Amino acid sequence: MDNFSYCTPTRYIFGRDTEKETGRLTAETGCRRVMIVSGGSSARKSGLLDRVTASLDEAGISYVELTGIKPNPTDDRVYEGIDLARREGVDGLLAVGGGSVIDTAKAIAGGVPYDGDFWDFWAGKAIMKEALPVGVVLTIPAAGSEGSGNSVITKLDGMHKISLRTDFALRPKFAVLNPELTFTLPPEQTAAGVADMMAHILERYFSPTEEVETTDRISEGLLMAIMEEAPKVMAAPDDYQARANIMWAGTMAHNGVCGCGRREDWTSHGLEHVLSAVYGVTHGAGLAVVFPAWMTFMASHRPEKVAQLGRRIFGVTAAGDKEAALKTVDSLRAFFKSIGLPLTLGELGIGNPDFAMLTRKFHEDKGTPFGPYFPLHPVDTEAVYRLML
Amino acid sequence: MDNFSYCTPTRYIFGRDTEKETGRLTAETGCRRVMIVSGGSSARKSGLLDRVTASLDEAGISYVELTGIKPNPTDDRVYEGIDLARREGVDGLLAVGGGSVIDTAKAIAGGVPYDGDFWDFWAGKAIMKEALPVGVVLTIPAAGSEGSGNSVITKLDGMHKISLRTDFALRPKFAVLNPELTFTLPPEQTAAGVADMMAHILERYFSPTEEVETTDRISEGLLMAIMEEAPKVMAAPDDYQARANIMWAGTMAHNGVCGCGRREDWTSHGLEHVLSAVYGVTHGAGLAVVFPAWMTFMASHRPEKVAQLGRRIFGVTAAGDKEAALKTVDSLRAFFKSIGLPLTLGELGIGNPDFAMLTRKFHEDKGTPFGPYFPLHPVDTEAVYRLML
Repeated sequence: MDNFSYCTPTRYIFGRDTEKETGRLTAETGCRRVMIVSGGSSARKSGLLDRVTASLDEAGISYVELTGIKPNPTDDRVYEGIDLARREGVDGLLAVGGGSVIDTAKAIAGGVPYDGDFWDFWAGKAIMKEALPVGVVLTIPAAGSEGSGNSVITKLDGMHKISLRTDFALRPKFAVLNPELTFTLPPEQTAAGVADMMAHILERYFSPTEEVETTDRISEGLLMAIMEEAPKVMAAPDDYQARANIMWAGTMAHNGVCGCGRREDWTSHGLEHVLSAVYGVTHGAGLAVVFPAWMTFMASHRPEKVAQLGRRIFGVTAAGDKEAALKTVDSLRAFFKSIGLPLTLGELGIGNPDFAMLTRKFHEDKGTPFGPYFPLHPVDTEAVYRLML
Repeated sequence: MDNFSYCTPTRYIFGRDTEKETGRLTAETGCRRVMIVSGGSSARKSGLLDRVTASLDEAGISYVELTGIKPNPTDDRVYEGIDLARREGVDGLLAVGGGSVIDTAKAIAGGVPYDGDFWDFWAGKAIMKEALPVGVVLTIPAAGSEGSGNSVITKLDGMHKISLRTDFALRPKFAVLNPELTFTLPPEQTAAGVADMMAHILERYFSPTEEVETTDRISEGLLMAIMEEAPKVMAAPDDYQARANIMWAGTMAHNGVCGCGRREDWTSHGLEHVLSAVYGVTHGAGLAVVFPAWMTFMASHRPEKVAQLGRRIFGVTAAGDKEAALKTVDSLRAFFKSIGLPLTLGELGIGNPDFAMLTRKFHEDKGTPFGPYFPLHPVDTEAVYRLML
């Protein structure tokens, strides 16, 4: 177990009708004029945005809107938001949506008080010390951004998808989590969200740090809960209890508790970010393809943690670690398949992948070698990509 | 799953040598003059208090001391501390010790800015809105007070041991968690701490709220981690990794995450608080006697959650819930026995228990009936106490 510092100050307001508390919660952060950031038209059509703005009106908080944020959010909308925020004198951000909306709101929040180019933080040229307060009304349980200090933005120039992690600056002040808001998510988006939250746990689980039993067991518990509840929401999208368990697990998957006391991996996210940036695939669906491939590679190179996972959450009984690891991959793939997720690049719609280019872009983003659990050199990286066929 | 609001803003600084950061952390809370609250002489003898005060000196923070806080802390020391704090103009509390020290520091922190009698909050006559900032350097992983908003104080007049729970006011601003500080704990104190943290999880696990799979799985994971690591620390008190896992599990056991989305029980703590107040037994040792007795009673009255626990963490295979619940109790008792904990009132040193008086005091403290998971009337309560023979 490594030394660590951990603080998750986000206030979670969880349950039915909680979006009606948005105004009060925003007022408690000290904001008087916020920018509401949202995605497509569903939050408008469902009446959610009306309920949120009514709650802001009641609390005497004015607002401007930035709408139409798309999946895999890009830097152009961040620049636009920063300009708008400065022009309109907003003192806080309110994200109503999923990870892309939240990450865009966070990037704007960090960019407004900064004199330079906001991308400096993502490029590693500056360290974010302050940001406008961010509140969240979550509509898609997946990215975990509602409880994290992270923000993933894609720079259009070069299509580099980069994740910034801050300790505090970008942690939302509050997150409204109403499982009812997720009833209308299409099945493929629900399933992709499940893969995304499981990946957030697995990226931390596959750690080179040993003797982290407490954090391991929390992580395994969350994975088991997600796999127990996911088939229920696929079968009945309005199963409140199953939606609620999934939503809360998605937040816990990424608020940092699964990383306490250990170095994290994040190789599979890096591999997937390249797929998303180049081929525009859905992040969660991409992860369902990437993670089992990476784990298969690890069965031959560092199987022990993959084997432990399978023994503890899938009841794998194989004695040898390599065999156990391969059986773990089979079980994980069977689960992903059962909720309709793709298992291959072909099923992702990538017919003729350019492995050399994918490998080059991965190492451009992450350096060479990359992989805390097991360092990948380009020859390894290409082998992992080929295991996705 | 119930609606809930959850926020755990305490900053955890975990690992070797972290007590040297106490000065910096205290300064970051805005304090300039603190009261150091401590227990017996061990923190002085070990050099810990010297390291802490050197760190405060470096950060330019002055201090006064309140020492000699005893287990099952009493209101007289709180009154003394409030007087001293006001006279000396301290603006924060720094607890260096375990649960009793932290709870005393918290009670002083809440009492200083309050015009009336601090006990009003514990008696339910007033709601605590503010408190001086509290920092913690933890030396005993058990009570979980370093991450909770709670404080348990015993009123000498009547020996009523009452737990106050606040959402925010009493949550420590920071908690320094260095597992090395726990190497010198005597075995019986280590074991009692283990029982205490397991009880904090079980009090939340035994909930009348159904369909809380995510919180259930986190709770089961923590229990499994504790039971995996506890024998290691009993065998080798300076096993850093095992001490570290136990310490972190003890904090997570009581910072609220195991209660998210459900009503909690807390009957066994109530039963034990009476034993502690009347017979002066160690809280954790008392819980090792109380909890299996309460669970045995539940095997006949509401077995399902006890059975689930056993099936998931002890591998109990019995088909019927009652039989499974009884086997769960056997397994839990066997674990407690393996780390040297008492299993009966006799082993606690209570030779001739006055069951009627214990029952009367329990219901005086908690009302009648009491028990969210299964309501106990006096006849039930006495039956549970008799199961401790």
